[in-house]
Amino acid sequence: MTASIPDIVISRLPIYLRALERLAQDGHEVTSSLELGKHLGISSAQIRKDLSHFGGFGKQGTGYKIKYLTEQLRQVLKVEQEWEIALVGAGDLGSAVARYRGFAHRGFRVAYVFDSAASKAGKRLGNLEIYPMEKLHEIISERQIKVAMIAVPAESAQQVADALIAAGVRAILNYAPINLNVPAHVRVQYIDPVIHLQRMTYYISE
Amino acid sequence: MTASIPDIVISRLPIYLRALERLAQDGHEVTSSLELGKHLGISSAQIRKDLSHFGGFGKQGTGYKIKYLTEQLRQVLKVEQEWEIALVGAGDLGSAVARYRGFAHRGFRVAYVFDSAASKAGKRLGNLEIYPMEKLHEIISERQIKVAMIAVPAESAQQVADALIAAGVRAILNYAPINLNVPAHVRVQYIDPVIHLQRMTYYISE
Repeated sequence: MTASIPDIVISRLPIYLRALERLAQDGHEVTSSLELGKHLGISSAQIRKDLSHFGGFGKQGTGYKIKYLTEQLRQVLKVEQEWEIALVGAGDLGSAVARYRGFAHRGFRVAYVFDSAASKAGKRLGNLEIYPMEKLHEIISERQIKVAMIAVPAESAQQVADALIAAGVRAILNYAPINLNVPAHVRVQYIDPVIHLQRMTYYISE
Repeated sequence: MTASIPDIVISRLPIYLRALERLAQDGHEVTSSLELGKHLGISSAQIRKDLSHFGGFGKQGTGYKIKYLTEQLRQVLKVEQEWEIALVGAGDLGSAVARYRGFAHRGFRVAYVFDSAASKAGKRLGNLEIYPMEKLHEIISERQIKVAMIAVPAESAQQVADALIAAGVRAILNYAPINLNVPAHVRVQYIDPVIHLQRMTYYISE
């Protein structure tokens, strides 16, 4: 494991991991940088180079063993075990996120839900109790939750982020359409449908 | 404009565009590959190389004019005008997506909403009427809608995609946690929170 893997490489590994998981679901046991590249629209040279940062994943010509490569990528990304996630916001979006079935077996589980509406506190969202914001600091710091998702209106997102970070959160997935200011030790990613839409319109010809 | 820009470059342009829009909002008029790279965790060499595919965006040392570069990127990505989007699914997630305020001025507008539930047909989602699925083919083909978002349960997502494509849709943003099979002339992107979460856990130290 090398000390510093470029951010841009790390950002592609989850894409490779998802492609491998889908190949495995389809019954494949071995794949190649060529096959992966074809699925993903990434050059096979790029894929080989990215994976070479970790060494020993496969030899050119013989292909990659999907199970082995999957395990290695999970380890690199630290998702071989499940992270508990704190979700803030139990409105339409938060409810949909809490019910999202794509987390299972991929390293994450929504474990705590918070909402500022007094009317929601104590109610349930699926199996989870909705906690008031007043409980956020205590629960997140005591349970040592490091990962959170923000599904609140744009106006309150920064305030929620500040509270999460003060309680020890290190990684935030933000659904609100606003840029968050966070200290250097905290990572933020954005769910931004426009980024994805803009990746496709280029290809639409009249 | 060169004929074939690599997919991987196109996939980064919306990220650059968003960063530029945020810099402009913060009052900046000029930026550099170094500054953009710092914001985005991408090397400045990569950014210069990506932008060089289109030529003439700026000279090394003098920086990029944000307004000009923004306009050029919008043109390349074909989002200088607004695309009407068809949204399928008016449940929790669909409602949240329809209300998302991040589309404005970025090239997209949710224009039509469809839902399979008879109880929802004719009701409103914000300003929009919810149409039954039976109307999907007619509306999408007549209005020549090319872009759609799928916010239905995983079980029905493929069937919805098939109907959208049959009606002429060329680009699908899929919120359902399922891989869609589409013909070669159709693009699909996925909203997958796990990809974003996995991009952050690598950086969380114990």
